[in-house]
Amino acid sequence: MSSRDVSPNLALDQLVARRRAEGAAIVHLGFGESRLPVFRPLVSRLLEGASRNAYGPVAGSADARAAVAGYFTRRRMPTDADQTVLAPGSKPLLMALQLVLPGDVLLARPSWVTYAPQARLAGKQVFGVPIPDECGGVPEPEALRETIRSARASGHNPRILILTTPDNPTGTVASPALVRELCEIAESEDLLILSDEIYRDIVHDPWRPVLSPAEVVPDRTIVLTGLSKSIALGGWRIGAARFPSGPWGERIRDEVLAVASEIWSTLAGPMQAVAEYVFAEPPEVVRRIAADTRLHGIVANAVHEIMVGAGALCRPPTGGFYVYPDFEPLRERLDWHGVTDSASLQRVLLDDFGVAVLGGHHLGDDPGALRFRAATSMLYGQTAEQREAALYAERPLSLPHIRDELDLLEEKLSVFVSSGVTKGAAVFPAGVR
Amino acid sequence: MSSRDVSPNLALDQLVARRRAEGAAIVHLGFGESRLPVFRPLVSRLLEGASRNAYGPVAGSADARAAVAGYFTRRRMPTDADQTVLAPGSKPLLMALQLVLPGDVLLARPSWVTYAPQARLAGKQVFGVPIPDECGGVPEPEALRETIRSARASGHNPRILILTTPDNPTGTVASPALVRELCEIAESEDLLILSDEIYRDIVHDPWRPVLSPAEVVPDRTIVLTGLSKSIALGGWRIGAARFPSGPWGERIRDEVLAVASEIWSTLAGPMQAVAEYVFAEPPEVVRRIAADTRLHGIVANAVHEIMVGAGALCRPPTGGFYVYPDFEPLRERLDWHGVTDSASLQRVLLDDFGVAVLGGHHLGDDPGALRFRAATSMLYGQTAEQREAALYAERPLSLPHIRDELDLLEEKLSVFVSSGVTKGAAVFPAGVR
Ligand SMILES: Cc1ncc(COP(=O)(O)O)c(C=O)c1O
Ligand SMILES: Cc1ncc(COP(=O)(O)O)c(C=O)c1O
Repeated sequence: MSSRDVSPNLALDQLVARRRAEGAAIVHLGFGESRLPVFRPLVSRLLEGASRNAYGPVAGSADARAAVAGYFTRRRMPTDADQTVLAPGSKPLLMALQLVLPGDVLLARPSWVTYAPQARLAGKQVFGVPIPDECGGVPEPEALRETIRSARASGHNPRILILTTPDNPTGTVASPALVRELCEIAESEDLLILSDEIYRDIVHDPWRPVLSPAEVVPDRTIVLTGLSKSIALGGWRIGAARFPSGPWGERIRDEVLAVASEIWSTLAGPMQAVAEYVFAEPPEVVRRIAADTRLHGIVANAVHEIMVGAGALCRPPTGGFYVYPDFEPLRERLDWHGVTDSASLQRVLLDDFGVAVLGGHHLGDDPGALRFRAATSMLYGQTAEQREAALYAERPLSLPHIRDELDLLEEKLSVFVSSGVTKGAAVFPAGVR
Repeated sequence: MSSRDVSPNLALDQLVARRRAEGAAIVHLGFGESRLPVFRPLVSRLLEGASRNAYGPVAGSADARAAVAGYFTRRRMPTDADQTVLAPGSKPLLMALQLVLPGDVLLARPSWVTYAPQARLAGKQVFGVPIPDECGGVPEPEALRETIRSARASGHNPRILILTTPDNPTGTVASPALVRELCEIAESEDLLILSDEIYRDIVHDPWRPVLSPAEVVPDRTIVLTGLSKSIALGGWRIGAARFPSGPWGERIRDEVLAVASEIWSTLAGPMQAVAEYVFAEPPEVVRRIAADTRLHGIVANAVHEIMVGAGALCRPPTGGFYVYPDFEPLRERLDWHGVTDSASLQRVLLDDFGVAVLGGHHLGDDPGALRFRAATSMLYGQTAEQREAALYAERPLSLPHIRDELDLLEEKLSVFVSSGVTKGAAVFPAGVR
């Protein structure tokens, strides 16, 4: 098989870690991880789960699945435990779904780095559809219709629509009206929806309405979730899926379980104990997730201000922990740095200015555009103490370690966008590179 | 895609669990799991690893990889940390390898349930090769040569040879002479070897020599291992791979990492802390694994005696925790029960005699043969206390809960193989079914 690369976001994170170890001062906005401490009570659950060293059921224990079912039921998606499957992350579940579901894939453009490579591993064609002006994570409806039409005309079979609300990379939440419109298209065009709701509990304004396609077209929607983002457990690898009730949903679930049993067996037993606890949403978990979400909102908005201040266009963030600025208005000036597309934008920002971001081309976006994703959740501190302080600070932006990073980012960007000054490489000492 | 089934061993384990919950008394030999308690010190390591909630490097932390490298180095395979990759089980690593390595697959017949379905998921053809009389887990050399020849003649490209030593399902260890002979074939026929050494530390006689193909043809061998078997951690999902040094090994490793980054990201952080500890093999771990191995050997040999006593042919077990009897000598008598092939053998033993085993057809063996795999590690007890007692008993076979199960098995099999008696279904009360 042809040579492959590690997922570019994971690769970038490893690169930044290496450069920092060599002494470089980098503002790291390159990795979509909630860098917050482990919620203490989870450690006791892990301990309690330690005796679970048997392989156990592929889908996860009955109790853990019941907790996941409750989680969805409380979000207006009535769910039986049998409709749920746990796994070591939502990533393997998405992979298994791409392997078992028929047809080609329709993706918002830009969208999360992994959807497209998984589709290719599953032998599927990917059709990117531009996002609307108001938000990302979903295709613009008219463009979606047009893409389906032309894909079919060229002999393809687009059947799977992946939606991400709230979204990575744009940090936005699709409106219920837009979700309904997309569900109508799914009905009329006979699409299956993979609704990636891993950021579901990170909506900055707790009153903002969130609608799942599973509420509108339950029979054609599979929902993905996980604990990597909302409660900062990326490294513990806990994800879950919700399948439609009824025979079709059961069949897809069984096929996913079959693939699971050949690829990863099951979610580790101790992690199932953790899942059971978190998905049951006891008050202290709800409070902790609310605290995380508040911090994500405050810092994402601060970074948004900096981007706009630097002259970029940028959707205001409403969910998750990302912003996705567009430096098109500054194209002429940036040309001066050798920045002509998103690959050179990413490279120059990292090499000459010590700002790590992920170029839009990695997310399926137009490679010629000057867009990147900034993961704002990386700004909470470089030590466990700093992150803990950020989480519980009344005014996180006043914490010196966050303020300093934001100021540094603002300064670096302002130099970057100022034409006619000395090149970044010269402005910053060598160690910074 | 066509409909799929859950891996038959996992499915059988779930079925037995359901029947037992309904009150059935089943001698469960159907699942390849070391049912022993968690080694206590591992729980502290899990706890220490709890703060590792960042995604971290795809391959695993540098420290965990260094420990894995040490593990292999102590087994005459000098290894650098960069040659190793950790994962949530060895199963995902085997899957990734099948996805990235070119060519079709040569498998011992019978062999572990998962190799063939993974090959099919990767779009590969599987060629089964009979095993020698002396042991399983490896193809008989002359039959291997012949299979390669005829596969090539029919336009196929057999390139990947999977070897399992010690073996599941036969519970045997291939001799160094045989391994050398297979390595010669690998050289002359340009095969890559996947050496599945997950049972490596479960060799009943500690003085029995074990040779890894990686010692003979290091440049064409990838070794798999894990903690599921030797230290009874199946449900914790910890596996590792060792790649050859040099450019080809690096390329394969990088491609496996690329696949890993799209399918499972990384081994959970707390589990990496566990891996680091176990693979470093401190004395208490070595002692615990020796205790497990002693028990596996004693009980596997007792079951072997029962099988032979019942009239089956059966290789004496020398590693792992399995026996693989052949009831061919009793074919005429068993016909009386409606047993004519390994599927009916498995069904009648479970339904009419309450003995759960895995028919050889699930392992790629000739479906018409009367062979099955008995996983003897399931006999250590049904409670944590019983298993703990089994592990540390001077004479495990004298423990009532083990003695009783073995006696029950012996009795059930003796009824089963006695022609002319009332059908098993009538002999045992309904509850037993
Ligand atoms: C949109 C989206 N979906 C899924 C994932 C996968 O997360 P995990 O495999 O940790 O559940 C991520 C993580 O970056 C993500 O951003
Ligand atoms: C021969 C063999 N290889 C690999 C595995 C996979 O084990 P794990 O994924 O738990 O590492 C097993 C488990 O049954 C096995 O018997």
